[in-house]
Amino acid sequence: MTDAARTKIYVDGPRGMRVPFTEVHQEASPGTGEANAPVRLYDTSGPGSVPERGLPAHRADWIAAREDVETYSGRERHLADDGRSAVRRGAATAEWQGERREPLRARDGRCVTQMHYARGGIVTPEMEYVAAREQCDVELVRTEVAAGRAIIPANVNHPETEPMIIGRRFLVKVNANIGNSAVTSSIAEEVDKLSWATQWGADTVMDLSTGDDIHTTREWIVRNSPVPIGTVPIYQALEKVDGKAEDLTWEVYRDTVIEQCEQGVDYMTVHAGVLLRYVPMTVHRVTGIVSRGGSIMAGWMLAHHQESFLYTHFDELCEIFAQYDVAFSLGDGLRPGSTADANDEAQLSELRTLAELTERAWQHDVQVMVEGPGHVPLNLVEENVRLEQEWCHGAPFYTLGPLVTDVAPGYDHITSAIGAATIAMHGTAMLCYVTPKEHLGLPDRDDVKTGVITYKLAAHAADVAKGHPGARDWDDALSKARFEFRWNDQFNLSLDPDTARSMHDETLPAEAAKTAHFCSMCGPKFCSMKISQDVRERFANDGMQQMSRTFVELGSSVYVEAGAGE
Amino acid sequence: MTDAARTKIYVDGPRGMRVPFTEVHQEASPGTGEANAPVRLYDTSGPGSVPERGLPAHRADWIAAREDVETYSGRERHLADDGRSAVRRGAATAEWQGERREPLRARDGRCVTQMHYARGGIVTPEMEYVAAREQCDVELVRTEVAAGRAIIPANVNHPETEPMIIGRRFLVKVNANIGNSAVTSSIAEEVDKLSWATQWGADTVMDLSTGDDIHTTREWIVRNSPVPIGTVPIYQALEKVDGKAEDLTWEVYRDTVIEQCEQGVDYMTVHAGVLLRYVPMTVHRVTGIVSRGGSIMAGWMLAHHQESFLYTHFDELCEIFAQYDVAFSLGDGLRPGSTADANDEAQLSELRTLAELTERAWQHDVQVMVEGPGHVPLNLVEENVRLEQEWCHGAPFYTLGPLVTDVAPGYDHITSAIGAATIAMHGTAMLCYVTPKEHLGLPDRDDVKTGVITYKLAAHAADVAKGHPGARDWDDALSKARFEFRWNDQFNLSLDPDTARSMHDETLPAEAAKTAHFCSMCGPKFCSMKISQDVRERFANDGMQQMSRTFVELGSSVYVEAGAGE
Repeated sequence: MTDAARTKIYVDGPRGMRVPFTEVHQEASPGTGEANAPVRLYDTSGPGSVPERGLPAHRADWIAAREDVETYSGRERHLADDGRSAVRRGAATAEWQGERREPLRARDGRCVTQMHYARGGIVTPEMEYVAAREQCDVELVRTEVAAGRAIIPANVNHPETEPMIIGRRFLVKVNANIGNSAVTSSIAEEVDKLSWATQWGADTVMDLSTGDDIHTTREWIVRNSPVPIGTVPIYQALEKVDGKAEDLTWEVYRDTVIEQCEQGVDYMTVHAGVLLRYVPMTVHRVTGIVSRGGSIMAGWMLAHHQESFLYTHFDELCEIFAQYDVAFSLGDGLRPGSTADANDEAQLSELRTLAELTERAWQHDVQVMVEGPGHVPLNLVEENVRLEQEWCHGAPFYTLGPLVTDVAPGYDHITSAIGAATIAMHGTAMLCYVTPKEHLGLPDRDDVKTGVITYKLAAHAADVAKGHPGARDWDDALSKARFEFRWNDQFNLSLDPDTARSMHDETLPAEAAKTAHFCSMCGPKFCSMKISQDVRERFANDGMQQMSRTFVELGSSVYVEAGAGE
Repeated sequence: MTDAARTKIYVDGPRGMRVPFTEVHQEASPGTGEANAPVRLYDTSGPGSVPERGLPAHRADWIAAREDVETYSGRERHLADDGRSAVRRGAATAEWQGERREPLRARDGRCVTQMHYARGGIVTPEMEYVAAREQCDVELVRTEVAAGRAIIPANVNHPETEPMIIGRRFLVKVNANIGNSAVTSSIAEEVDKLSWATQWGADTVMDLSTGDDIHTTREWIVRNSPVPIGTVPIYQALEKVDGKAEDLTWEVYRDTVIEQCEQGVDYMTVHAGVLLRYVPMTVHRVTGIVSRGGSIMAGWMLAHHQESFLYTHFDELCEIFAQYDVAFSLGDGLRPGSTADANDEAQLSELRTLAELTERAWQHDVQVMVEGPGHVPLNLVEENVRLEQEWCHGAPFYTLGPLVTDVAPGYDHITSAIGAATIAMHGTAMLCYVTPKEHLGLPDRDDVKTGVITYKLAAHAADVAKGHPGARDWDDALSKARFEFRWNDQFNLSLDPDTARSMHDETLPAEAAKTAHFCSMCGPKFCSMKISQDVRERFANDGMQQMSRTFVELGSSVYVEAGAGE
């Protein structure tokens, strides 16, 4: 039933492009027999891939047609790209088995970013695809990207993506973090988490691997990903210097960035706002520096008593990103790790610097989003997005939660969904999910699903609260199905049909119950929805409605008389 | 470890009363060896009971000492009190086996409500107990109760309760709904859900049974409950008329209310605000009337074309409640059942009437709280509590969620926790939990726990956001433990230590890992908290801190020189 009524469709877009949606077909209303229109939902699941082969490069022609990129031999591969264990073994495990393309980069003197095109008045296929997905005018897409208020992460070396946009004027997006660590998991598991996350609605995925085979794991993920992939290059750079922060250099970092640009990473978290003079501001915090990138750079700066090379080489980084169309995700290395540290001097000082870096990146036509906290009491959440939008000239805000209390480990997908829905309502463009394992362990498959669904509902709640065009139609369709006891329609319209259906079946397993005009809460004997429908029937004819209006004006006595007649 | 470090204690209060808390003992900080003070948490679990015998009547002496109540033979028991099946069987199942006391009621001309005492300047033991639990001044308790801004639900026939207070100046409270329905569960299961709910922090419990053995199920629940019990008497009244709403009468309802007053129900939901002239306002809603009580009365009014007997007999109801100190929970029978229907004419018209009824109840010195929605988009949530507080003169608001989107059945504990935390931050005094089974089925034991924990974190997030005295100390203690890798302290300070511990053990089972200075997220090789602690050590001595301050003022160059010397 679910499969038949809930299907993936492709809508024809401009230039013969096919734009994916999930379409939910509904039954007619019982009684009236009135038809209920199918509901179209945004779809991130991609066409599906065989992991060993990866996805088709459907954007390749669009990129080539612009005639502003060239192929080149690319950076030389080193065993160290896969970490110390690979070096020990003398080989990388699970070498990528699919097609290997020569990397692309901008031709000399060209800039290949979507921001550059948008500013030049060019409407790209990526923009048209995005407009079709968002069901909005493509000019809105172009102007928002041109202004820096939205980004379309689309590395020329990741032609497998279905373009999407991140900006406050568009649907609120959700990112899912995956990736291995020194103590867990395999490449196959991570690729499975990727597909699982996008199946449930993840709009982008970050590969935060810090363990073995980083390069190869990322290759498998990028080649199989229909959504933009984000990374934090400093993690791999740290691997290349054997985990010793003080041994990091701009050269090692630069080499890592180019390695990842060539693989097709669409956006990279760069903690360039953590300046040497901000580090002392964290000394009296309850939880100091909790961002890995932030603490790595703090460690480096203290060891060398020098300003962060991410800051001093920022323009060079912009030049590299512009050649591949990699977007900055300016990391908040000094984000609060506890409600006590929220909105403090360290956090806000860094935000000021991220605002400065945003403008510098824009001078290179490089796309930028800005990362936000973290742990923030609910009364301080709005201020975070207000300041970011004000200081960073509307650059898209991308926040982790925030968690609104520290006392519920094991439930931090919920403590953070509260902050996430609120901050998104006030203008955050993308939410980084938090799973139940936050602070406790690495998310497994179930945690990934729980995290994604929780954040999709938070993001949608924000779309509804913002009055985003058409957002509430989905709620209204499901509520109407619920009110009319169209159980299967209610399940199929749910963010997670499987869970809704199985929970219903726990108390009323019979298929008959799917059409029953009652549920297990009240039982067959009495049902408020049923009575409520009777009420509606009583008032169904216009005469009665006219009378009830009079009645509302004149008060009940009149009504009783009038009503007594029927 | 948990058991040893997390214990239930009793603090001596006035008049020899013993006030319960959960006390969490912490380890000293590693490195510094600095001691970490034990943390005291509000405790609702009660002394524990043998279901067949029930709890000790520890409030009995307080009640007797006031010399304003009398025992009387009480209403005659009818088999019909336990529903049609009992009548068929000719006997109630699972008759209450514990002690049977004669019911108490106010002596002629006396009023025995906490509001009456408070207004008379009398500080009752109940108020002192509450002040000790809330760690606030007892005069705050008395004046808030006198003003109607807070209630202490404490039926004289429920002497087993540990008094608690519901009001915006106090900790945000959480109610858990339990109760059977025509299609499910047994008395034993419901008593188990009660204990389970209070163990995890439910401040009150509502018995919403609509199935068999209603009277006896309630008897078992009240006798075993350390927290106030709420009910919706119209449900049982409907049973007494064989489920036919039109057959309801004031007499049947009155009889049911007295039956429950004598059993010791502490507050009752009364949908007296659903007036005949409001019913037509629901006709064009997406989900009509979703409140059971509201739809029952709508059905009755339409059948008889008469105003609700709950409204026309409201003063008589007040006189009854005043004799037992039963508090009103004025039901929102026209609450929105979908985001589309939020804050509409029907809902707000009813709220106006609830405001009028609040004042009428206060004229009888009867305690009142007002119920709120439901389903409300996040941007409209604040208005609900603002209007209620304004129109109802600060009477405590008691809301169900609200759910901020309709599209996530199976996750409505989360969609509603978002609205709940927000509405509580703006002044809602008590939150009615929503479990994952909302809209789908009746909550089982696991759902009850998930619902309670989810709402406890939402309520606490609101306490922190409101800056409630001492609220954030709990967060700070847990965050400090987290930062110092005191894993066991972190678990013991959690809302749900079992879940936090087991999730951690999934990735790092060894007991050694409990003291490890790393976790599974980064692995042993690299840890941001560790680096952050190193940073702190570097700045540990005052000289360095002085220097870093100078440095912040003068910029990094100065710092490097100064720092270069060490």
